[in-house]
Amino acid sequence: MVGYPPYLKKIQDLTGGKEIIATGMTHEVERCRMALERAAGGAEVALISSGDPGIYGMAGLVIELAKVDGIEVPIEVIPGVTAAAAAAAKIGAPLMVDFAVISLSDRLVPWETIRTRLEAAAAADFVAALYNPRSRERVAQLDEAVAIFRRHRPPATPVGIATAVGTGTERIVVTDLERLLDFAIDMQTIVIVGNSSSKLIGKWFVTARGYTV
Amino acid sequence: MVGYPPYLKKIQDLTGGKEIIATGMTHEVERCRMALERAAGGAEVALISSGDPGIYGMAGLVIELAKVDGIEVPIEVIPGVTAAAAAAAKIGAPLMVDFAVISLSDRLVPWETIRTRLEAAAAADFVAALYNPRSRERVAQLDEAVAIFRRHRPPATPVGIATAVGTGTERIVVTDLERLLDFAIDMQTIVIVGNSSSKLIGKWFVTARGYTV
Repeated sequence: MVGYPPYLKKIQDLTGGKEIIATGMTHEVERCRMALERAAGGAEVALISSGDPGIYGMAGLVIELAKVDGIEVPIEVIPGVTAAAAAAAKIGAPLMVDFAVISLSDRLVPWETIRTRLEAAAAADFVAALYNPRSRERVAQLDEAVAIFRRHRPPATPVGIATAVGTGTERIVVTDLERLLDFAIDMQTIVIVGNSSSKLIGKWFVTARGYTV
Repeated sequence: MVGYPPYLKKIQDLTGGKEIIATGMTHEVERCRMALERAAGGAEVALISSGDPGIYGMAGLVIELAKVDGIEVPIEVIPGVTAAAAAAAKIGAPLMVDFAVISLSDRLVPWETIRTRLEAAAAADFVAALYNPRSRERVAQLDEAVAIFRRHRPPATPVGIATAVGTGTERIVVTDLERLLDFAIDMQTIVIVGNSSSKLIGKWFVTARGYTV
């Protein structure tokens, strides 16, 4: 079983008795290559991502590297509950209509590209699920994203902030676009910004899909 | 357990011995109200959606109706694997970067709104996951969506077509934007349209996230 140590720790009930290969954050290429090499050697290997491995996870990279390195092993991608869906369920039902999933991390994608997507999503009334909104070193991107949404949407637009969902330190906040930046947000947070049909219903943030109720 | 009959049939192993309330397609409001009424009467009720109940499912409607009808019962939304993630896993790793989720059904949302979102997603280089692409009565929307993407993307752009994923009639096709409309597509299909970093690797459709490989 190959993975980032905190993810392996979360599935300790499944890793007992198995060989564990843990590599640190940002070592994704190395991690995938280790998984492929073991598989090429005949082992049955599980490469662990959190959430869904096909959404900002390891699925694409491992397929790319298998090709580049000429390693022919059977690969199966096992889908999961992506962070936006897990966050949405705690917040209410913010993703009931068309939505855009955008990572604010510019480590692999130019910020200019991300900004264009934020503008497009905001202008076309998509609900937006923002992954990797802020890290210790990277704080300006979320400020700019909020500014973009505020140019297109009223300050009272519902916003959900879900951090470390499903863990012992889970924090769920339902607020609005005006107050979003007042709350603690980090790399374990998903921020969901509502659209023109989003509303607050009691403690819930719901985006109405258009049913007559 | 309350749901659309084909969904209840899929979980027969869980429904044994429980009261079943099945209502037909397009009867979503009625279905949610039945669930709420039973819950208000003291029953523990499961309202079943396929995929993730918070993504084009019943979660939002049931919260809205509880408010409208003045029914105060505890509600929990349990997330699931949404159809786009299940489809993506069979196709390869098409959703590795920012993506837009768009339903082509104009039953609840004006087509003008959907078209604006398709244009925005296509122009901003989002990968796109299209839900409800075509029904027996509704065929023009997919044609128009494809025309929009073809104005922004080359004909060789990878496209995945995943139908009835996880069932006995599952069909997976990896093709391109030029040939997309040559294949069978219906309401059980998810269509995933690649972006500028998408590519075909053997049988897989992968969107490269930007790692140096």
